[in-house]
Amino acid sequence: MAVIGGGQLARMMAEPAAALGIPLRLLAEAPGVSAAQVIADHTVGDYTDLATLRQVTAGCEVVTFDHEHVPTDHLHALEADLAVRPGPQALVHAQDKGVMRARLAALGVPCPRNQLVSTVADVEAFAAANGGWPCVLKTTRGGYDGKGVWFVHGPGDCTAAFESGRAILAEERVDFRRELSALVARSPSGQVAAWPVVASTQRDGICHEVIAPAPDLAEDLAIRAQQIAMQLAGELGVTGILAVELFETRDGGVLVNELAMRPHNTGHWTQDGAVTSQFENHLRAVLDLPLGAPDARAPWTVMVNILGGERQTGHLYDGYPHAMARDPRLRVHLYGKELRPGRKVGHVNAYGDDLADCLERARHAAAWFAGDLGEDSTDLD
Amino acid sequence: MAVIGGGQLARMMAEPAAALGIPLRLLAEAPGVSAAQVIADHTVGDYTDLATLRQVTAGCEVVTFDHEHVPTDHLHALEADLAVRPGPQALVHAQDKGVMRARLAALGVPCPRNQLVSTVADVEAFAAANGGWPCVLKTTRGGYDGKGVWFVHGPGDCTAAFESGRAILAEERVDFRRELSALVARSPSGQVAAWPVVASTQRDGICHEVIAPAPDLAEDLAIRAQQIAMQLAGELGVTGILAVELFETRDGGVLVNELAMRPHNTGHWTQDGAVTSQFENHLRAVLDLPLGAPDARAPWTVMVNILGGERQTGHLYDGYPHAMARDPRLRVHLYGKELRPGRKVGHVNAYGDDLADCLERARHAAAWFAGDLGEDSTDLD
Repeated sequence: MAVIGGGQLARMMAEPAAALGIPLRLLAEAPGVSAAQVIADHTVGDYTDLATLRQVTAGCEVVTFDHEHVPTDHLHALEADLAVRPGPQALVHAQDKGVMRARLAALGVPCPRNQLVSTVADVEAFAAANGGWPCVLKTTRGGYDGKGVWFVHGPGDCTAAFESGRAILAEERVDFRRELSALVARSPSGQVAAWPVVASTQRDGICHEVIAPAPDLAEDLAIRAQQIAMQLAGELGVTGILAVELFETRDGGVLVNELAMRPHNTGHWTQDGAVTSQFENHLRAVLDLPLGAPDARAPWTVMVNILGGERQTGHLYDGYPHAMARDPRLRVHLYGKELRPGRKVGHVNAYGDDLADCLERARHAAAWFAGDLGEDSTDLD
Repeated sequence: MAVIGGGQLARMMAEPAAALGIPLRLLAEAPGVSAAQVIADHTVGDYTDLATLRQVTAGCEVVTFDHEHVPTDHLHALEADLAVRPGPQALVHAQDKGVMRARLAALGVPCPRNQLVSTVADVEAFAAANGGWPCVLKTTRGGYDGKGVWFVHGPGDCTAAFESGRAILAEERVDFRRELSALVARSPSGQVAAWPVVASTQRDGICHEVIAPAPDLAEDLAIRAQQIAMQLAGELGVTGILAVELFETRDGGVLVNELAMRPHNTGHWTQDGAVTSQFENHLRAVLDLPLGAPDARAPWTVMVNILGGERQTGHLYDGYPHAMARDPRLRVHLYGKELRPGRKVGHVNAYGDDLADCLERARHAAAWFAGDLGEDSTDLD
C-alpha cells in the first residue's frame, strides 16, 4: 500500500501496519519528515508531480493519503493503475468547501448558511441576509488548522481573504454550544464502523482537546451525528476514515462544519481508548478488509495535543521523566517533529473511569511537554 | 537506541518506539528480516562480529537486544562505549543455563534438581540420585524453542545431547501442574513493574497459548512468583524485561524453569491486554525512563501463537477476511516472516470478560491462520 504525505497521520498508520504485516511505501515531502523516520520504504518527492506519484505507487494495489492536497486531476490519472482510496469523487468534498456545501445542501444535511462570494459587496449582502456581522470567510481549498479562515466583523475585515487569491465561501457565524466530531470508517464493500461521538475544543483554530464520549450528549443527538457521518460516507463514496466536525447548536441540533477524509485529530483518542484505532481501521478500510470494533475500552478517554511552545527549551524527550513518573497510565504519542511555536508535535491520551481525573492528567502532561509548566510555575504539582 | 537482532521482538519494539518518538537503529541478520521491514535505519551484518557491533552502535547511548546470542566478550567490549542493557553480567544468566542454575541455587531460589554432566555415566548417576528416569538434558548455551532440549528415558537416549558439542545440564523431570510465567521490567534506577502472572502452554517445545492472568492461581503463589521475578531482576542486575518461566508443582509450589532477558512470548498478551506493553516498558527500562503501569485492561486476555502449518497455502494475509469478519475485537500481530512449518509467524490476542469466549476466539483465529481449519473441516463454523 502506498501512502502520500509524510506527516504524523502517515506515521501513526505505520504502527498498525507493522502489527498487521502490511507493507507501506511512503511519498514524503522532505527527508526525515515525521513518517519517513518510521517507514523504511520511502521516497522523497513532490506530491503535486504526477510522474512522482506514478513512480511511488507503481506495483501497489492501493494508495491512500496523509493529507487532502494531492491535485484532483492526478488522483483521476492514478485511478487507471490502482485503487485510490478515498477516490477523487469523494475526496473533492474534503478538498473544496464550495463543492462540499453544495452537496450537503442537495443531501439535506444541516449546515451553517453559506454562499460563495467574489467581492466585499457579496459578503455585505450575505451578512445582511443571514444574521449580520460577524460572519466567517473561508478559502474553499487549501485551508487547515485555522489557516484560510477569517472571522470578519465588517467590510473592512475582508481584505485578507480576497487577497488569498482563492475562491471564498462566506458562512454565518454559528452560536454553538460546543463542537462535536463523528468519526466513521467505511470500506469499498460498504461496511461502516462508527466510533462514539466526541466533544472537541479548538484553540487558535487548532484542535486542542477531545473528550470521548462527548459528556452529557443527548442520545438522540449522538445517534443523529453518527447517522449524518454514515450517510455522508455512503453518499460520497468514502473509503477509509471520514471525520465530520459538527456544531452542537444551543437549540439542540447539529450543523456540519467540516469534513476530513483521513485519520483525524479528533480520532487520536482511539489509539488507546477504543478496541480498534482510527489508524488501523483506515488501513483495513482502504484494503477492503472487515473493520475492527470501534467501541470504547474505557468510560472516558481524553486527548490533549502537545503544541510547540514559546517557553520550550531542549527536546520534548526531556519531558518524559516527570510526565511518566507522575502518571504511569499516561499514553504519549510524539511525532518526531522539530519544535516550533504553535506546531502540533504530539498528543497524550488519558483514559479511566473518572472524567475529571482524565482531564487533569492529560492537560497536565500536555502543558508540561509544551513547556507551560516550569519549575518556577505555581501550576506545577 | 540500537537494537541487535532483526526478529519479531525487535519488530514489535518499533511500534512503541514510533509512538514515543524514540529513534531505533537495527542490526539485522539478513536483508528483509522481520524487524528490518519496519525499522528504517537498519544495517545488515553479523552480530558475532565486534567491528559490526561497534559500527551499528556508534553514536548511540544504549544498545539492547532481540535475542540472547551476542557473545559475552563482545558485550563487555561494547560497554566501554555505551550502556549495554541488559548488561553482560546479567545476560549471562539467560545465555548459560549452568551459570543460571548455580546463581539461583546461591540465591535460594527453588529450581528443579540439576547437575552439569559430561558423560552418559554422569547422567546415570544423576538419574539414580534424583528420582530416576526420565530426566531432561539441556545444552547450557544456544537452545531456544525446544531446540537443545532432550527428554531421555535411559542411557541409550543420551547420544544426541552429547553429540551437540556443547556443555550439558541434566535436570529432573518435574511433574508439574502447569507452566507459569512471571514477567517484570526493571530500569537501571531499580524501578520494577510486574505484570500479572500468566499460565502458558507449550506445544513441541514452543510457547503455544498464554492465559492472563493464570486461572485459579492461588494469590500467595502469584505473589511468590512475582517476588521471585523481582528478586532475580534486582540480584542479577537486569535492565529491561525479565521473563521467569516457572513450573507450578502439584504440591502447590513453584520451581524456576528458564529465564529470558528480553520481551518474551509469554508477554505478547500485554500488547492488547495491559496498560503498558512489555515492548514499551522494555524501551522505557533500557532508557531508564519511569515505567508504565503493568496492570491488565481486561479481566482476561488470551494469546495464541500462529505457526506455519503443513496445510497452509498462499499468504497469511489470506486469513484476514474470515478472521476479522468473524471477530471484530480480535487483535492480530503478524511478523512479516515467510511460512515454514512450525515457525512462529504471528500471534493473536483476544480479551474480554469471559475466559471461555476469549479462548475460543483466539484458538479459532490462530488455527485459521495456520491453515488447520479448511473449507473441508468440520471444525469450521
